[in-house]
Amino acid sequence: MENLPKRLAQQLKFVMEIDKLKNIYRQNLIADASRRENDAEHSWHLAVLAVLLAEYVPEPVDLLKVMKMVLLHDVVEIDAGDVFCYDPEAAVGKEEREIKAAERIYGLLPADQGRELRELWDEFEARATPEAKFAACLDRLQPLLLNFHTEGGTWRIHGVPAAKVRQRMEPIAQISPVLGEAVEQLLQEAIARGILQE
Amino acid sequence: MENLPKRLAQQLKFVMEIDKLKNIYRQNLIADASRRENDAEHSWHLAVLAVLLAEYVPEPVDLLKVMKMVLLHDVVEIDAGDVFCYDPEAAVGKEEREIKAAERIYGLLPADQGRELRELWDEFEARATPEAKFAACLDRLQPLLLNFHTEGGTWRIHGVPAAKVRQRMEPIAQISPVLGEAVEQLLQEAIARGILQE
Repeated sequence: MENLPKRLAQQLKFVMEIDKLKNIYRQNLIADASRRENDAEHSWHLAVLAVLLAEYVPEPVDLLKVMKMVLLHDVVEIDAGDVFCYDPEAAVGKEEREIKAAERIYGLLPADQGRELRELWDEFEARATPEAKFAACLDRLQPLLLNFHTEGGTWRIHGVPAAKVRQRMEPIAQISPVLGEAVEQLLQEAIARGILQE
Repeated sequence: MENLPKRLAQQLKFVMEIDKLKNIYRQNLIADASRRENDAEHSWHLAVLAVLLAEYVPEPVDLLKVMKMVLLHDVVEIDAGDVFCYDPEAAVGKEEREIKAAERIYGLLPADQGRELRELWDEFEARATPEAKFAACLDRLQPLLLNFHTEGGTWRIHGVPAAKVRQRMEPIAQISPVLGEAVEQLLQEAIARGILQE
């Protein structure tokens, strides 16, 4: 790789570095409940959801930007690890660890590209633009779908009650009333089926 | 899910169906050589490569289209299975099986969306447009990078000689001379290191 043009070598180094996301396992199970899902699979699934569900966002969204955001939103977990969203203790120091990780990992890229992707990650974290809000919506909806299809999945494993799940899902209705309503319906169905505690 | 608006229910059914790609294993190893890579991970990696390397394609390409293409190009393998690219016997009947799979799986979606994504897959397979050529280029470059970083990976495991690898890599130089040259350099380095047979 050392003999390649410098810019391309930097890009490919980043590509190989983020291969590590294939070994970072989240709490969520995949749909057949056979094992936990990794960050690469999760990011792929979010990008597909972005393509299919963008029509439910009333505000104009730049879909390409959303896709770049969701494909790379978990890159910081290579250094900082995955933190279960319902575990406040594990979240202590998370922001600091993730910022340090972003500096190292996006720093592998040529400066202009590293800056663009780092800014997208900052934008994702700030959750202020329509793109970041839609990305956050997908990042909540996808694990909900997996939990719903695996008899409660992490809700059951960790005994997460409906009130906490509802709170976590709030950003969905904020960016998309239709998806917000659908999520509420799924939660009610999950409660009725006994796979989510009221 | 039955109580959701019909269109959304169809979209989410597709999203859950393609979760199966997380269990379809390719021949390629992931970068730490600990196990084979699955289709979801591979598709994610291609989409990131598309973002980073689009600048090396001299023709104008619609990056969003390329990303949709690579994210979903392997969906047909849910029914048709993964065929190792250096195994001509396994490829017998592949096209027919994949077309049948495309009909079933894209058919889960609302008609307009199913049609759009099916057409993107047909376009990918025909490899005639700049977007399809770039997608094919990424689909060859990514496993090459993994083989290069895993002491030869599938080249070594299956004894694939350099001439066959070069033939497989031809589409890369056709859409991007810079990437084509880089690939040739990597192959020469792989031969020099003894991880690819001359």
